[in-house]
Amino acid sequence: MLAEIITIGDEILIGQIVDTNSAWMAARLNDIGIRIKQISSVSDDKQHILTALAEATRRADIILITGGLGPTKDDITKKTIAEYFDVKLVENKDALDNVIAIFARYNRPLLEVNRLQAQVPENCEVILNKNGTAPGMWFNVDGKIYISMPGVPHEMMYMMDDTVLPKLKSTLKLPFIIHKTILTVGEGESFLAERIADIEDSLPSYIKLAYLPKLGQVRLRLSGYGEDEILLKDKVNEFAAKIVERVANVVAAEEDIPIEKAILDFMSGKGVTLSLAESCTGGYIAHLITQHPGSSKVFLGGVVSYSNGLKESVLGVKNATLGQFGAVSRETVMEMVAGALLNFKSDYAVAVTGIAGPDGGTPDKPVGTVWIAVATINKTVAKKLTFGNKRKQNIERSAISALSMLNTLLHENGE
Amino acid sequence: MLAEIITIGDEILIGQIVDTNSAWMAARLNDIGIRIKQISSVSDDKQHILTALAEATRRADIILITGGLGPTKDDITKKTIAEYFDVKLVENKDALDNVIAIFARYNRPLLEVNRLQAQVPENCEVILNKNGTAPGMWFNVDGKIYISMPGVPHEMMYMMDDTVLPKLKSTLKLPFIIHKTILTVGEGESFLAERIADIEDSLPSYIKLAYLPKLGQVRLRLSGYGEDEILLKDKVNEFAAKIVERVANVVAAEEDIPIEKAILDFMSGKGVTLSLAESCTGGYIAHLITQHPGSSKVFLGGVVSYSNGLKESVLGVKNATLGQFGAVSRETVMEMVAGALLNFKSDYAVAVTGIAGPDGGTPDKPVGTVWIAVATINKTVAKKLTFGNKRKQNIERSAISALSMLNTLLHENGE
Repeated sequence: MLAEIITIGDEILIGQIVDTNSAWMAARLNDIGIRIKQISSVSDDKQHILTALAEATRRADIILITGGLGPTKDDITKKTIAEYFDVKLVENKDALDNVIAIFARYNRPLLEVNRLQAQVPENCEVILNKNGTAPGMWFNVDGKIYISMPGVPHEMMYMMDDTVLPKLKSTLKLPFIIHKTILTVGEGESFLAERIADIEDSLPSYIKLAYLPKLGQVRLRLSGYGEDEILLKDKVNEFAAKIVERVANVVAAEEDIPIEKAILDFMSGKGVTLSLAESCTGGYIAHLITQHPGSSKVFLGGVVSYSNGLKESVLGVKNATLGQFGAVSRETVMEMVAGALLNFKSDYAVAVTGIAGPDGGTPDKPVGTVWIAVATINKTVAKKLTFGNKRKQNIERSAISALSMLNTLLHENGE
Repeated sequence: MLAEIITIGDEILIGQIVDTNSAWMAARLNDIGIRIKQISSVSDDKQHILTALAEATRRADIILITGGLGPTKDDITKKTIAEYFDVKLVENKDALDNVIAIFARYNRPLLEVNRLQAQVPENCEVILNKNGTAPGMWFNVDGKIYISMPGVPHEMMYMMDDTVLPKLKSTLKLPFIIHKTILTVGEGESFLAERIADIEDSLPSYIKLAYLPKLGQVRLRLSGYGEDEILLKDKVNEFAAKIVERVANVVAAEEDIPIEKAILDFMSGKGVTLSLAESCTGGYIAHLITQHPGSSKVFLGGVVSYSNGLKESVLGVKNATLGQFGAVSRETVMEMVAGALLNFKSDYAVAVTGIAGPDGGTPDKPVGTVWIAVATINKTVAKKLTFGNKRKQNIERSAISALSMLNTLLHENGE
């Protein structure tokens, strides 16, 4: 079963916002066996939307549309869909009740533009929007399904999980798609490919292998397509196991999770705790960790010691060390990690200090110079890394490198 | 001048990665007056890529392709482009020299798959990839320009800035597009629309206004299209000034920057400093701030006090306060913000404590309960907010609310 996603909105086409909706929708649809043929972002323009609908209809069975359903004047999706199906807009009672209830809840007067949000093409079923005023719409036309949802991510997500996915599952007879992902760290794409070339060559035609490299990590994704769920799972798992065995030294997780989640799961299983002393990563590692539910079982907290003052007062880094070796040095990062272990009373600690850039480098320590230390009571490992001059990349690469080092220490330590 | 972006890769269509490249490219192209007509994500499939190329060629003058140029077997873009133009692949000396140089630099053996990366369609000009082994490709065919680049973001970005954008500017005579964005916080989209309806109605046809709502913020974007750059700038600025005057009480910035950047710029101008005490936001506010160059002028640092232990030891929150009122309470957040001001020696401080979820709520304090305090030496403001049960949203909304409160305090305080 093939689907297409059409996102509507000039804000995507001028690059003001990143289209995160489509990836989320694609992942959810894949989970229930619906493959996405194409994702298209088009402008708030009637003719362009009509063309996109016609093209998608030729290629796919299910067409999902997001965006262009807000209350303001730049939203034309609804009218265009009505024109596409050659039907009128009519006021829908359920949608109106929802709009009225939401405005009542927030004690806000109902404006005429809000009332207009309850108008929908007459051939649709309304999908209730529990998080906003714009109704979703479901159309069955000539054997195809069209679903239109608002572009506000949490409104769309709720509609998908609450209504759209259950309804698609109950309406359609779907084939199976099984994905299995192996997260590796510390080895390049082509070296991995060489190591597992014979396994890849032996894959049956209904299983595909993809390499997804990102910042020192490579995800290996096996995808199996077919009718027989049990056979498919067995075969995908069989080949995944062969790959894991072959490249075991660089495998961080055997599922599609980020490295910090793999670490959290592992540490949680062992009952050990973590703290952080972040300088150039500026809270990014803490953020990566704390976005995951349950992280408080493992993560005690940390300090973002941007100023030297905080390195001294919170971590106990010696003023003399900062003076003699500088904030970005082996000596400082070792005192930072020791201070985190001691002051935050965790079993493991990670410290990062570096020059994220774009300014602040010296001939000695150019922008992109980063010292990372990971430690537990009986062992500390420190490493200097040299990245480029792009701030965001340096922050991300430092964080992933620090997590990789922690992952290695945890496994070496037999935790 | 119209362009289209085609991103190639199953990883986008199964939702494993978010397509951030397209937004970045679109913004850069807009800056030089090239409008994006459509962004399409298609699969690693020859026929599908051929169709996408043909469709884009019908609509646009410039077709930019990313993805599918890595060294591994799942990459077929290059061969498909050669087939599309009906030309052969040939080894390119510059591209090969680049591959050899990169492998030499990292002291790695050159594999056969890497050498194959130097093969390109014979009708292309090679775009040097200084950050990787896959060459970019530029084609001039039948009055259209085709540009193919790797999907790895920093490789693509470097090629765009270093080669593609300068070459497009020197080759084409481009019209002007002027965008002007006003960032507002604390008022909904439809209320803003009501307040400026007459201004919007008076806009000339060559200026469009868009509302871009996100998490309690609404960006108002004016876009002017035309030939006369000076007139266009004047007119866009004139209407922007009218809007800013009308809704001055909710304007946080008169440019397209995030709220934390507006705050950093403002505080930097006043020479005042900031520290943070983050509990449920888990370092996210610190990360938002420290992703901006120059943030160290304003931001001294902060603590991610996930455990009660750190709230006591680093911030000086009283054990009795935590015991009597709990970690998520007015009393605790007031002690947290006072502790940050005192211990981190900053002029302003922000503290956040809450229950991000999905678990950990009580009937009294359900998931989504968040206390935020902002303070300076002579004033502290604390507020309780109640969000939903979605962890990531609660973290983001808490962060944006905290920054909004800080923004208000800064401006009220006459800083």
